[in-house]
Amino acid sequence: MEQASFKEIVDDLFQELFPICRSITGNGIRESFKILRKYLPLELHEIPSGEQIFDWVVPEEWNINDAYIMDLNGNRLVDFQENNLHVISYSIPVKERISFDKLKPKLHSLPDQPDAIPYLTSYYARDWGFCLSEKQLDKFDPSAEYEIYIDSELKHGSLTIGECKLPGTTKGEILLSSYLCHPSMANNELSGPILIALLYRYLSKKTKRRFTYRFYIGPETIGALVYLKMRGKLLKERVLAGLVVTCCGDRGRFTFKRAKDEHAWINQIAAHVVNWSQIDCNILDFFPTGSDERQYSSPGFDLPVASLMRSMYSQFPEYHTSLDDLNFVDTTELLETMRVYVNLLESLEADDKYINCKPHGEPQLAKYGLYPTIGGQKTKKKFARNLRFLLCYSDGKTGLLEIAERAGVPIWDFAEPVALALENGLIEMVEGESNTSPMHVLKIKST
Amino acid sequence: MEQASFKEIVDDLFQELFPICRSITGNGIRESFKILRKYLPLELHEIPSGEQIFDWVVPEEWNINDAYIMDLNGNRLVDFQENNLHVISYSIPVKERISFDKLKPKLHSLPDQPDAIPYLTSYYARDWGFCLSEKQLDKFDPSAEYEIYIDSELKHGSLTIGECKLPGTTKGEILLSSYLCHPSMANNELSGPILIALLYRYLSKKTKRRFTYRFYIGPETIGALVYLKMRGKLLKERVLAGLVVTCCGDRGRFTFKRAKDEHAWINQIAAHVVNWSQIDCNILDFFPTGSDERQYSSPGFDLPVASLMRSMYSQFPEYHTSLDDLNFVDTTELLETMRVYVNLLESLEADDKYINCKPHGEPQLAKYGLYPTIGGQKTKKKFARNLRFLLCYSDGKTGLLEIAERAGVPIWDFAEPVALALENGLIEMVEGESNTSPMHVLKIKST
Amino acid sequence: MEQASFKEIVDDLFQELFPICRSITGNGIRESFKILRKYLPLELHEIPSGEQIFDWVVPEEWNINDAYIMDLNGNRLVDFQENNLHVISYSIPVKERISFDKLKPKLHSLPDQPDAIPYLTSYYARDWGFCLSEKQLDKFDPSAEYEIYIDSELKHGSLTIGECKLPGTTKGEILLSSYLCHPSMANNELSGPILIALLYRYLSKKTKRRFTYRFYIGPETIGALVYLKMRGKLLKERVLAGLVVTCCGDRGRFTFKRAKDEHAWINQIAAHVVNWSQIDCNILDFFPTGSDERQYSSPGFDLPVASLMRSMYSQFPEYHTSLDDLNFVDTTELLETMRVYVNLLESLEADDKYINCKPHGEPQLAKYGLYPTIGGQKTKKKFARNLRFLLCYSDGKTGLLEIAERAGVPIWDFAEPVALALENGLIEMVEGESNTSPMHVLKIKST
Repeated sequence: MEQASFKEIVDDLFQELFPICRSITGNGIRESFKILRKYLPLELHEIPSGEQIFDWVVPEEWNINDAYIMDLNGNRLVDFQENNLHVISYSIPVKERISFDKLKPKLHSLPDQPDAIPYLTSYYARDWGFCLSEKQLDKFDPSAEYEIYIDSELKHGSLTIGECKLPGTTKGEILLSSYLCHPSMANNELSGPILIALLYRYLSKKTKRRFTYRFYIGPETIGALVYLKMRGKLLKERVLAGLVVTCCGDRGRFTFKRAKDEHAWINQIAAHVVNWSQIDCNILDFFPTGSDERQYSSPGFDLPVASLMRSMYSQFPEYHTSLDDLNFVDTTELLETMRVYVNLLESLEADDKYINCKPHGEPQLAKYGLYPTIGGQKTKKKFARNLRFLLCYSDGKTGLLEIAERAGVPIWDFAEPVALALENGLIEMVEGESNTSPMHVLKIKST
Repeated sequence: MEQASFKEIVDDLFQELFPICRSITGNGIRESFKILRKYLPLELHEIPSGEQIFDWVVPEEWNINDAYIMDLNGNRLVDFQENNLHVISYSIPVKERISFDKLKPKLHSLPDQPDAIPYLTSYYARDWGFCLSEKQLDKFDPSAEYEIYIDSELKHGSLTIGECKLPGTTKGEILLSSYLCHPSMANNELSGPILIALLYRYLSKKTKRRFTYRFYIGPETIGALVYLKMRGKLLKERVLAGLVVTCCGDRGRFTFKRAKDEHAWINQIAAHVVNWSQIDCNILDFFPTGSDERQYSSPGFDLPVASLMRSMYSQFPEYHTSLDDLNFVDTTELLETMRVYVNLLESLEADDKYINCKPHGEPQLAKYGLYPTIGGQKTKKKFARNLRFLLCYSDGKTGLLEIAERAGVPIWDFAEPVALALENGLIEMVEGESNTSPMHVLKIKST
Repeated sequence: MEQASFKEIVDDLFQELFPICRSITGNGIRESFKILRKYLPLELHEIPSGEQIFDWVVPEEWNINDAYIMDLNGNRLVDFQENNLHVISYSIPVKERISFDKLKPKLHSLPDQPDAIPYLTSYYARDWGFCLSEKQLDKFDPSAEYEIYIDSELKHGSLTIGECKLPGTTKGEILLSSYLCHPSMANNELSGPILIALLYRYLSKKTKRRFTYRFYIGPETIGALVYLKMRGKLLKERVLAGLVVTCCGDRGRFTFKRAKDEHAWINQIAAHVVNWSQIDCNILDFFPTGSDERQYSSPGFDLPVASLMRSMYSQFPEYHTSLDDLNFVDTTELLETMRVYVNLLESLEADDKYINCKPHGEPQLAKYGLYPTIGGQKTKKKFARNLRFLLCYSDGKTGLLEIAERAGVPIWDFAEPVALALENGLIEMVEGESNTSPMHVLKIKST
């Protein structure tokens, strides 16, 4: 399995993870973690029900075996075995015969999307209910009675989160965060954890990592809060950039949601990468609704966490319905999203600061074989031009991203000039934390 | 009278004030102050002629009883009793028979506006002259002689200014300044003092004022200089924002002239209010010609004083002529201008800074009844969105104006989220001066 | 000769300097300096071959007497006596009979410009070669042998640079730099040194100079490095603005290449001058290829040096070919370039900071005869408006350039208001270094 291709990993994980009924606690999420750990060596933490997490309390653990609505002839009109979205997550157990009139307020459908089953939850208020398509609802007899049954359990248990790290040569960290608490929906939210697994695989194979990479997966909101309680102080000290990995497997155009601090490094890098790799990407200012970036960006932490998606949550019609299924996602598209993530991470890795070792005038480049010996030719020398930008701006304070923007070329075009300038002793990398901070504020135009 | 409506106040003041012959000193301005004090409890100060005011000296007091130009048949061709604009303000007394040739240089008309009598003054050079319409001028006989008569008096006296205050819960002040030295002209300048009276009435009825409001009215230029000599040091310490209230009763579009410091709070607030209330407003950078903002913005004081007008002084053809009469202004329009002033002042009042009391992650909003308990619904919740912006950005340094701009909504949409967040202990207002300074520099796009 | 007109100087220098075969060392450059010194009292420095200059070494001195390629019938197909571009600069001596096949790699032509002889050099690698037009190349017989002859000499000698200064009332310096190492080419590079001579003449006749002007001319690159080794520390302390004067005699539109620091004073001045004098000018961000601004802008010096050109080097087809001859340049155009340089320098001179001596309110301008005594007239008074901007913004920190930009007029419109305000004791000039630093950062829109 270790040698599986990225494509094989995606297909395997989608197939295995999709059918499971997950919620923010319970055996569904534990089983899902077990599957994910084939590719991503998450260390799991169990946090007991009732534990205070800032303004919140870890809820009781929820599990469910079966649920249905049956007419008096024994026909199951709504059946949890067919689709786990049919039961509102965290529904309390129920078993009774009830008139349609009394049942009606407990039935949730989407009149505008008659084929779709909506996804609803009631984590923090004891309640129950069924979700069904408008077409299913039409089949009910208003004058009839129905047998309803929810075989669920709410009890003291625990909430599960997972984390792992890949060490780098410096203590600065890049946080990659996703969540795993949705039942059978593919884009939101299996695509996020799956992409995290791919990025782990990719990064683990790099011979050198400048940064430490921290991977976190847990239930949305409450999981991130638990993780912040556990690691928040450390994250505040170390995280240089973070990304919430979500909604990344559909066919839509890209969406980059900026980190809260508009000058954050990840925002600059993203603007640069989007600009120079010509991906079709909608760049949005931060807003405190959405996913776990809300918790990371709360004023007590203010971590520089952005999010790169394809179609953004809430903005596609399949969102939070049964239409977000395995047909809605596409492996090729997920791998394309991975490519952009890799581009972002590699650009972060490349954005070093250098200091020119021969800062008085230009070095005599020809001496080092870095310039043609017969001068005056009109030939355009992209390499020499980039090398000159590197030397001219490497004052120990200006990072490679800013130099690339000034040169009007992508940061990856500097790989060769940097390598040769280092090799010839023309530049040295700035040591320690001043290599990554403070950032110069660049105004990169973005779409 | 105390219970008069705003409309009744406007109509009453225009009718009473318009006929009076005012100048920068004298009984006309004293009589005008007496009328204004029915609605605005100004404390008056008399400054004696000859007193040194920075680079200036308070001039002698000027009063006038009568003036005319009569032909030798006893017909009054120009008569001060018909229109007090006919005499150049501060004209010295004259009584003589004179040929048209000698009279001609003392007659001022506007060839391009043949029906209009221009408004001219000669405060600081002893002179005399008549203003008349081009049509009146045409009736003179170039070969005839005329009796001219100006029954005026220049003598040691005093200059009158008025001020009053409405206290607030903090020492920071908002300065509302206008001037009262023009004879019978309605927009420039009766609309200004009348609007000051309305704003006093409005603000005095508020149950709570964050700021102290300071109202000043006096003759243009010399009055503002006198007031700055008297109160300049205090104003420099306390004034957070100021507005010169002038030219605000005509039917033209709005004009906002920025305070000198482009980042001044009043400039930010005005850009926000103009933008979100969709008023048709021309926003101009500060320039040191115009009205009393010139004195407030001199480098010795540099107070953050802007000006909100309708048609700007010098820019409408009726300006400084007899055409600026009671037909040129309109009570409904003046009340519309008041509405925008109130919006500006209420936005200043609302632009507080708050600190999130539960800054680690989001508070559990459902616990406080501030969020629906069944999650996942697609319903858009404007209230919850604004509440989240409030909580996410309330770090004690970011004001509500900036938060509103980030949320892309007007500051008044935050009234309910702020009230409920305060009530539930989720935020606290920042105490003392750090609530109003220093401002974050927001770049609000403006029309 | 001292009384020669600018036009006569240009014509004289072009005629005398053009025929000389210059290189980065040798008698050609010495002879050229001798001619230039008729108008520009350069002090010359000779730096011996072998001296270490930062990462470089002063090369051996190169001189050449004759060179040709002759067929076996004694016909000279390529003759140095006809055009000194025919020999690659710094070619070692050669005399041999050689087959066309072996000669071919040593022949350089431009297939796209069949009439042009290219200009090539090999300063730092011992080599030789001929440059010729494509049409000349076509006349060679591929099967024939040729006599080749280069009568050159490379020996220990010295490299020559020249400098002179015009003192000002302050120590702050303006650097005017050009280079002189190209053989017979007119725009690049005789136009630069000739314009330097004109600017020296112009500036030497000014009765008062605020700044010290430093004029430098030497061979490109190595000369600037020598000069920086000799004077770099002093330049770093004193240079407030600099310009590389090059490519300034052709008929193309103007090009301004910004200094490296985007907020540099010279960049602000140039944006202002270009904007208000409506010259057709392409303004480019700094880039570290080009001419000697590369050395001045290296991180060890970081001098604020820009460059004003007509058609930019490398961007016109005649560049570095025999087509850059006396027909390609035009005296009238060079004088037009001079006019823009003078405008830039005069604007630098004028950009003083003043302090308002009567800062509390406006002074009573009429007292000083600076305002009409009868007020209220609609006449627009440009003078009075500029005077008010001057008084209102003269806080000792805001320079005249910023005031002019705020007033929306060119800095030269302030000459009269400044003179009269100084004369009447309304303002005083700020003394010492705080007059020129630190700059306020103005965002001047530019084309």
